[in-house]
Amino acid sequence: MELLEAFKWRYATKKFDSTKKVELELIDKIIEASWLAPTSSGLQPFELLVITNQELKNKITKSAFDQQIVADCSHLLVFAAWDNYTEERIDHIYAHHTREREQLTDRYNAYTDRLKAMYLTRPAITNFEHAARQAYIAMGFAMAEAASLKVDATPMEGFIADEVDAILDLASKGLKSVLLLPIGYRDTENDWLVNHKKVRHPKKEFLTVIE
Amino acid sequence: MELLEAFKWRYATKKFDSTKKVELELIDKIIEASWLAPTSSGLQPFELLVITNQELKNKITKSAFDQQIVADCSHLLVFAAWDNYTEERIDHIYAHHTREREQLTDRYNAYTDRLKAMYLTRPAITNFEHAARQAYIAMGFAMAEAASLKVDATPMEGFIADEVDAILDLASKGLKSVLLLPIGYRDTENDWLVNHKKVRHPKKEFLTVIE
Repeated sequence: MELLEAFKWRYATKKFDSTKKVELELIDKIIEASWLAPTSSGLQPFELLVITNQELKNKITKSAFDQQIVADCSHLLVFAAWDNYTEERIDHIYAHHTREREQLTDRYNAYTDRLKAMYLTRPAITNFEHAARQAYIAMGFAMAEAASLKVDATPMEGFIADEVDAILDLASKGLKSVLLLPIGYRDTENDWLVNHKKVRHPKKEFLTVIE
Repeated sequence: MELLEAFKWRYATKKFDSTKKVELELIDKIIEASWLAPTSSGLQPFELLVITNQELKNKITKSAFDQQIVADCSHLLVFAAWDNYTEERIDHIYAHHTREREQLTDRYNAYTDRLKAMYLTRPAITNFEHAARQAYIAMGFAMAEAASLKVDATPMEGFIADEVDAILDLASKGLKSVLLLPIGYRDTENDWLVNHKKVRHPKKEFLTVIE
């Protein structure tokens, strides 16, 4: 299937078949896609939690306005962004880059100095906002991969982040939840949205071409 | 090619072959992918500008710290988010949804009333930040589609948004630029990055599985 067909096929599933689990091999591919997503300066300023524990899914459901897709999904992906950029985090990432690319130890120093000059002088909330945006790209990649595998996924901002952070003890890791992505298989018979037409802006309002 | 292979193949191209243009059919697919991307409440709070005009690309290059990929690319995509949510914008979108889905005229009223209660009481900057995040998903979809077609694309935040807004007269449309995505074909011989290893966090730092 062409990817564009997969994008047309996918939709924000409103009812998962809770008896169907997504094969581990497919979940691994979806995780891999989000891991491969590009991020600003390659910092990958977020982590991914993958939850199958039912008790935990139930708790998070309560913090997500009782949306049952969280409880019923096969795997719940939680994208949690760095609460701030720090010198340690930047150095840690670029030490890894230096080793992986077999570069001289000072190869990235000028670059990371510029990053630090920019990020470490800004309020934490500005840095968190920037980190959060990167997670959206990764969620996009995860959704694209899922759709290409005919696995359903529902992007969600509708949850109380502070509560989810507490449930998952994210503050202790310097993280804040920004997105949920329940994954599973649609319950076609019971999903009110499945047969609704996919609607987008008229192209002429969305797109401007300047030649 | 499996999509995951395409994600491994892609990289942030640092040098485009300015003599190679991307076929219109492929550009249309990349635009279509970004148009199909999901957004919060389906509002699609951003527009896409596609620029091939060389003079304009040159001007934007100057506002992008002279990064030549902007001048050399085949097509420059500019993602520009709504500067705010307004009653008119929300009503306009849902009137379109109502028509396209052939619903009763008041079908979405309770839903849009809730959206308005939430969005119209917040500062414009909060709404813009939220709109901007949605554009990142769409850029993710566009990049996935491009990679699946073996077309190169370089996600860019490194530009002076106010200047690009002025060049493209975005304020008059209630828009602010958030992302550039130059598209084209890599100049393999002259791109310093093309043969560098793709580096990501060690998986054990990126991923937490809770069973």
